[in-house]
Amino acid sequence: MEATDGMEAADAAALQERLEAGGQGHVLRFWQELGDADRRALAAELRGMDVAEINRFFRRARGDGGGEAAAALDARMEPVPRDVLGSASRDRGLVPRWESRGLAEIAGSRVAALLLAGGQGTRLGVPYPKGMCDVGLPSRKTLFHLQAQRLRRLQQLAEEQHGTPCHIPWYIMTSGRTMESTKEFFQKHCYFGLKKENIIFFQQGMLPALGFDGKILLEEKGKIAMAPDGNGGLYRALGAHGIVEDMERRGVQSVHVYCVDNILVKVADPRFIGFCLEKGADCGAKVVEKTNPTEPVGVVCRVDGVYQVVEYSEISLATAQKRGPDGRLLFNAGNIANHYFTTAFLKDVVNTYEPQLQHHVAEKKIPHVDIATGQLIQPEKPNGIKMEKFVFDIFQFSKKFVVYEVLREDEFSPLKNADSQNGKDNPTTARHALMSLHHCWVLNAGGHFVDENGTRIPAIPRLKDANDLPIQCEISPLVSYGGEGLEKYVKDQEFRAPLIIDEDGIHELVKNGM
Amino acid sequence: MEATDGMEAADAAALQERLEAGGQGHVLRFWQELGDADRRALAAELRGMDVAEINRFFRRARGDGGGEAAAALDARMEPVPRDVLGSASRDRGLVPRWESRGLAEIAGSRVAALLLAGGQGTRLGVPYPKGMCDVGLPSRKTLFHLQAQRLRRLQQLAEEQHGTPCHIPWYIMTSGRTMESTKEFFQKHCYFGLKKENIIFFQQGMLPALGFDGKILLEEKGKIAMAPDGNGGLYRALGAHGIVEDMERRGVQSVHVYCVDNILVKVADPRFIGFCLEKGADCGAKVVEKTNPTEPVGVVCRVDGVYQVVEYSEISLATAQKRGPDGRLLFNAGNIANHYFTTAFLKDVVNTYEPQLQHHVAEKKIPHVDIATGQLIQPEKPNGIKMEKFVFDIFQFSKKFVVYEVLREDEFSPLKNADSQNGKDNPTTARHALMSLHHCWVLNAGGHFVDENGTRIPAIPRLKDANDLPIQCEISPLVSYGGEGLEKYVKDQEFRAPLIIDEDGIHELVKNGM
Repeated sequence: MEATDGMEAADAAALQERLEAGGQGHVLRFWQELGDADRRALAAELRGMDVAEINRFFRRARGDGGGEAAAALDARMEPVPRDVLGSASRDRGLVPRWESRGLAEIAGSRVAALLLAGGQGTRLGVPYPKGMCDVGLPSRKTLFHLQAQRLRRLQQLAEEQHGTPCHIPWYIMTSGRTMESTKEFFQKHCYFGLKKENIIFFQQGMLPALGFDGKILLEEKGKIAMAPDGNGGLYRALGAHGIVEDMERRGVQSVHVYCVDNILVKVADPRFIGFCLEKGADCGAKVVEKTNPTEPVGVVCRVDGVYQVVEYSEISLATAQKRGPDGRLLFNAGNIANHYFTTAFLKDVVNTYEPQLQHHVAEKKIPHVDIATGQLIQPEKPNGIKMEKFVFDIFQFSKKFVVYEVLREDEFSPLKNADSQNGKDNPTTARHALMSLHHCWVLNAGGHFVDENGTRIPAIPRLKDANDLPIQCEISPLVSYGGEGLEKYVKDQEFRAPLIIDEDGIHELVKNGM
Repeated sequence: MEATDGMEAADAAALQERLEAGGQGHVLRFWQELGDADRRALAAELRGMDVAEINRFFRRARGDGGGEAAAALDARMEPVPRDVLGSASRDRGLVPRWESRGLAEIAGSRVAALLLAGGQGTRLGVPYPKGMCDVGLPSRKTLFHLQAQRLRRLQQLAEEQHGTPCHIPWYIMTSGRTMESTKEFFQKHCYFGLKKENIIFFQQGMLPALGFDGKILLEEKGKIAMAPDGNGGLYRALGAHGIVEDMERRGVQSVHVYCVDNILVKVADPRFIGFCLEKGADCGAKVVEKTNPTEPVGVVCRVDGVYQVVEYSEISLATAQKRGPDGRLLFNAGNIANHYFTTAFLKDVVNTYEPQLQHHVAEKKIPHVDIATGQLIQPEKPNGIKMEKFVFDIFQFSKKFVVYEVLREDEFSPLKNADSQNGKDNPTTARHALMSLHHCWVLNAGGHFVDENGTRIPAIPRLKDANDLPIQCEISPLVSYGGEGLEKYVKDQEFRAPLIIDEDGIHELVKNGM
């Protein structure tokens, strides 16, 4: 290894030595071939990397069993007990109380939202962060835009009810790959009307991809193959960037953590927050009912008496098919990555529990440079692993854990894939889910839709063919957070779709030959 | 009107007079322009038509209200009481008894299947009857083929358990449009191994399409626009073709009536039949749970104390969203056109009740010849009606009505549409539903699937991308009717998909570069 401009020979040798000591010396195999800039970049990346820790992560992660462990898992699983569960459908009478409690908390500026937005839109097929995605709504609003406007409306509702100005700090976790474009996007859109100082961007960590032998993989001769450390990288990032301290400084006591990809997400949902507060919970999960045993969704349950999410790939069919006396699936608390934490609990997690978390191993096809030949290899089957933590890994540390069940059609439609034949969870399904919900809001507020002849369209419109769109209807979050306050716009009125209701009023867009 | 070869002037004049008397004389408006063959065909069609009755149908059908009636309907609806309901998920302990009772009945040759196959595959986009559709299963079996083999397997199971040979007569209702091609298809395939004499084809009636003014529409100058009279045309056809007498002659006491388009249909399901027998029912409906308020499916319920199906377009959103204390939708008995009738009940229907049934009116765009100008008109909005009866219209006459709830993933996946972007109920969804079910059967019988590396695939396979197929797995109905009897083929064995199990044994089809 040769010293270069800006890098002393001693530094380089020390780096080499440290890597060799950790069994990772091979990452400098092509050092001689690199130019100065590449050398500097690689050395910088390696300097920030704790090789001993990575090796420790790898040994622990690989030790957590496989198929055999899953078989044993089944026998140890217990469903969420009824007294831990609040349900939007089964406890309807209590919902107004929860909502009111949550709004009071928001009015006191004691609630924050925390967005997990570190993932790239790889499966979605877009070269930018998912939150920047426009799924083709009439308004062309992006996911970030919808979420920001929901926060604005919620602040307004809380202020109206309690007469005090308030704000909901919005923490946004990006990754190295999404930070710059995300910040630029928010800046370009003037933070969607929110105050800049209440939006706090921070970055999650990255970890190198490893071969099955634990060796760090090179993406290029001078570049480590790095990947974000999973949405559970949140807790390390909270510590690294002093986020919990920021929350404390702002007086935040409750945090709603959610994923960027759910177009229906009720950001800082006052009902969920109110429910968790009433229960005195330090940690809560919002779920939707899993109704089909083979639906690929993780379930919240207890294992050996401790709460966790069992992922769909870990469960046996027999367990997935188990039903209670009411005919429902026994394990039906479908995780939608939508959680409640107290700031105090997050503080304990950061300070005490996070280092205890093990990484999960995802076997992947990882393009890499062959150390022997220097050739770039595009593997056809998995050749290595990425190590990730999951946001729900901390449930086990909760002292008072609760589960809040909501209706799927009201709150959950994730955007994961590009549009395709018979596809699921794509821009079309997301758009349809939002418009169907808003159509229901209009009907429930006493409005009606009519067809081109002026005839009223049934609440559940007739399906003329497979591609029948839902009624085109979009209501700005600035007008309604969850269906409230629409009577004054729509009651006893008839509309022709597409209908848009926003802060400027009602718009019926009659299509011209579209 | 001019007499023609083969048609006396007196006959023609009588026809004209009868039509004029019924206000339908316009259908002969173009008589002078027709050739002999067209005149003969038109006259023959008109001679078989009871104009006075059609006018009566029209007046009655138009009198049955619209939006106002629907509003009133909501208030009169009551859900199915628990004691009328049998549930495959909530009454699991009773299912073996019902199955055994049903199999005994089948073994005694007292059960028939009756297939409603009068519809054409218009929405599906095929020029032949739906039952002839191949949805792309590895075996390339058609819907007719699958159903026939299920009947064969059921006969075999009943014989094995009871030691007596038996048969399940299969009544197949076609329409004028599907009769010839259906019969040819069965003949060509040697009745799929069933005895020809146990398959009884009969034809449902047709009715003319009418303008909003009740005038019969012409499809061509010499041809009436005819349409099948709905799947409820069954009851008239049963009478017209002496089908109930045929059932009595064969000793049939229970009839399972179902639609051709459900790829998972359990033809002559012994559990359903056994449940209905145990309850002493004369009429029963098999349903699946409706879980989303706006799902376009009719619901079985009581209206003014009488059982009926309320169609999705008749229900208000508020009613569709109603929930019981258990959080389930109050009106959740989703109709899947899958019914049980005793032969005695069908006899009463044919002899007494059928004439009391009113037609339902479907407003349609009906291409027709303009009477004034003789030009063919392709309407852009609905210009007329088709009159239909529905198979469930007779529930109201039942003296002991029951409902049997089954799991959607086990029994219901209809084929309605062609494949398309984000489509539902199409060949792809049908194929996937069947293969997913058979995959579950293999796992439940103790088999396993492995990937190309020999690693076991989780029961709920990981979704690598939106288009991930389910595990390719197809089990011939000749081997298993409902998942039974597979242990000897699969227990403790590992398979690579695609896996086919049929009467010749196990086939693993390793794909070559597919």
